[in-house]
Formats: sequence, structure tokens, C-alpha cells
Amino acid sequence: MKELLYEGKAKRIYKTDDERTVLVEYKDSATAFNGQKKETIIGKGRLNNEITSLLFLKLKEHGIPSHFIKKISATEQLVKKVTIIPLEVVVRNVAAGSLSTRLGIEEGKRLAAPLVEFYLKNDDLGDPLVTVHHILELNVATVQETAILREKALEINTVLSSFFNELGIRLIDFKLEFGKDEDGHILLADEISPDTCRLWDQQTNEKLDKDVFRRDLGSLTEAYETILTRLGGQQHV
Amino acid sequence: MKELLYEGKAKRIYKTDDERTVLVEYKDSATAFNGQKKETIIGKGRLNNEITSLLFLKLKEHGIPSHFIKKISATEQLVKKVTIIPLEVVVRNVAAGSLSTRLGIEEGKRLAAPLVEFYLKNDDLGDPLVTVHHILELNVATVQETAILREKALEINTVLSSFFNELGIRLIDFKLEFGKDEDGHILLADEISPDTCRLWDQQTNEKLDKDVFRRDLGSLTEAYETILTRLGGQQHV
Repeated sequence: MKELLYEGKAKRIYKTDDERTVLVEYKDSATAFNGQKKETIIGKGRLNNEITSLLFLKLKEHGIPSHFIKKISATEQLVKKVTIIPLEVVVRNVAAGSLSTRLGIEEGKRLAAPLVEFYLKNDDLGDPLVTVHHILELNVATVQETAILREKALEINTVLSSFFNELGIRLIDFKLEFGKDEDGHILLADEISPDTCRLWDQQTNEKLDKDVFRRDLGSLTEAYETILTRLGGQQHV
Repeated sequence: MKELLYEGKAKRIYKTDDERTVLVEYKDSATAFNGQKKETIIGKGRLNNEITSLLFLKLKEHGIPSHFIKKISATEQLVKKVTIIPLEVVVRNVAAGSLSTRLGIEEGKRLAAPLVEFYLKNDDLGDPLVTVHHILELNVATVQETAILREKALEINTVLSSFFNELGIRLIDFKLEFGKDEDGHILLADEISPDTCRLWDQQTNEKLDKDVFRRDLGSLTEAYETILTRLGGQQHV
């Protein structure tokens, strides 16, 4: 029986025999609006596990390490144990979602430059937007660390934007989380999937991400299968 | 008959014979929560005109210029015409208000360092918090200009904190607005009053600012008269 260390909205983290690693299981549950909308969607766990594994490998090829070690089953992956920095690091190339509603920028407008935002990971507070000065006041990270997070996020954006572009997909925006390993090094962690990215078809602007669920636009698994297929991943049999 | 150029929630701006100046009239109206709470409070216009005039003079003594030229009546002052930069620049010394509710920092906690925040001046959007990167994307100010705003705001905080401290008042936080004159120089503008500052009595922590109105804590004019009296201004006759 695996020992559960933590259960989040979309994943469970289990202990392994090795102190330095943990097992991540992707759940078949979709949530949105800070957990207010919730559904079980069969196959979602497998899709996000596969997609995240492929994207973490792609980033590694480009010299960007992450906590990812290997996929070990349809819905599970082995990762390095890290202490998560409680910040959601969002990179935006095109206005959508909260950027559009908060600042009145039309959805679909390409931004002058990729925009990095930090949100405090705190469900009770609704993950509020924070500036570097808030981060310092809250002792969540140092100036140097926030600079590293920003730099890594922009590097990851360059690699992923170009990769998705080759697959006929526009990377609109995405959310990253980072953690510190036992040596204090900052590593990309969590997941990169259609749950955490906005991905639009280049030709049709069709949404191939969690907005399908948030806005009831059709089948989430069909959209996520499209992403996995274009990434060259295993089709569902 | 004076020609009205602009009417805001708390002030009216009139044309003068001189192209380079405008007349500001402070209204007897109190508003809060983005205009949702509204009241006429006789005497408020005079109090804020007097207090703002005294504080702008005090800042000038310390080498910090503003748009203020002179007080010309109980409720009116003459100021340089500037183009307002659509940002609210907030400086915080102690957690209160939206900082406490957004980030879960206990009201009354002294911050590790004075915190500067920028909010987009846009009533329709509810004046959202913005980072420097949002400001750049929205073309509201340049990197250099936001750096100047931050620096000036911190300078003003140093002068005002020490001044209020001598008067037995804690400057908790305050909001500034800046404008550009015809030469493009950035000048402090708008007002500095208990409408735009949080001011607590040092001994009792009694609130002597607009929170009295926001939270129905008693007489707004009594609180504002206390501030004016301590500043050495003219008492109401």
C-alpha cells in the first residue's frame, strides 16, 4: 500500500522507498474557479501524465531540468522530491483569462512582450496576484530567487512556444510551479499540461485546454487527445 | 461662471484665465467601495482643501514639488495643469485595507519595508493592482517613469511619516497620483488628505481617516478636524 503524502485537486503524491523521490499520480478530476466547478473525467489523468512527461523531456533536451525522472505507468510518474515555492508563475504571450478580465485587454490580443506574473499559491485567498515586493514582504522567495523564476519561466516559454508552433498550436499562456531540491537548487516542478496551459489551434483558434471545461465548450478529453496526438504521444487504445 | 473641465468623486476641476493652471474645488461628498457608498458631508471639502494645502507646502519645504500653487478659498486651490498618469501609487508602512484582505496579512502589522504598489486608475475595472510589466504592456508609463514614481513615493513617505510622527499620528498607508506638466516633468498631483491616507492615533490607534466613513466608526468631520488641528491648520469657526 503506497503511503499518501499529499492530495491536491488534480494529483496525489506518494512516498517511495527512496527519500529523494516521490510518486505523482494524475487524477481523473477536473476543477476550475478555485474548486467551485468539479467533475470526474475518465482518462484525464492518463492524458496529463503523458503530456507532462513528454513536455518535461522536451525541456530537458533543451537544457531545462525539472523534477521529472520518468513515467512509470499510464497515470503515474516518478519525480525528484522538492519543496514547492508557493508561487504560481504565469507566462502570457496572448491576452486571455484573468488578464483580459482584470485589465480590459481583449482576449486574443498578442502582447508586446511575454508577460510574467506571480500569484501566491493560497486557495483561501484565491491565489492573489503579487508583485516582487509582496513576495519579499511575505518571505516567499528572495529577490534573487524571483529573478531566477522569471528567467526560467521566459526560457521555458521560448522552448515551448516554438515547439507548439511546429505542431500548429499557439501557446497563449501557462502556469508553472517551481521547487527547491535538497541542495537548494530551483527546479521546475508540478505539471505542464492542458490543465495549466492555454493552447489554441493555429488555424481555427479552437481551444485545446481546460477552458473547454471551464466554459463548457465540448469534450475535454477530445481536446487533450488532440494535444497528445500532435505531441506524438501514445493514442488511447 | 467658471468653466468645469472635469468632475470627479471628490473634486471639481475648473478652467482659469491662465492656460497653465486650473482651479480645484473640493466637494462635500464622501464615496467608498468604488462609489457604491456615497454621502454628502458638510465641511469635508474645506477640511481636505486645507489639509492637502498644508501637506503640499510641507513637502515643498523638503524639496518635493507638486502641482499645488496656492489655496485661494476655503474649498479651492490653484494648481498647475498636468496630465494625470492613470496610476494610483500606494505606499504602505503598516498592513491594512486591501493588503490585509488580499494577502492575509494581519491589519496593524508593520511591514518589513515600505511597500509601493501601483493600481490602474480605471473605475470600470475597479482600479486593479498592476505590476510594472502590466504598466508597460498597457503603455501607461515607461520603465523609467515607474522607477521615478516609486522613488518619489518613497521620498514622500519618508517626509510625511516623520512629520505625522511628530504630531502623534501613524501614517499607515496612502495613495498618490502624479501628472506630467507641459515640459513632461513628473509632478505630484491630486490630493493628500484623510481621504487618501490611513492615519491612526499613535496612542489609541483611533482611525482618523476615511475608514471612519467606510466602516461607520463615527464622525468623519471630527476625525478630519483632529488631523487639521494637529497639522496646525485653521479650526472651523
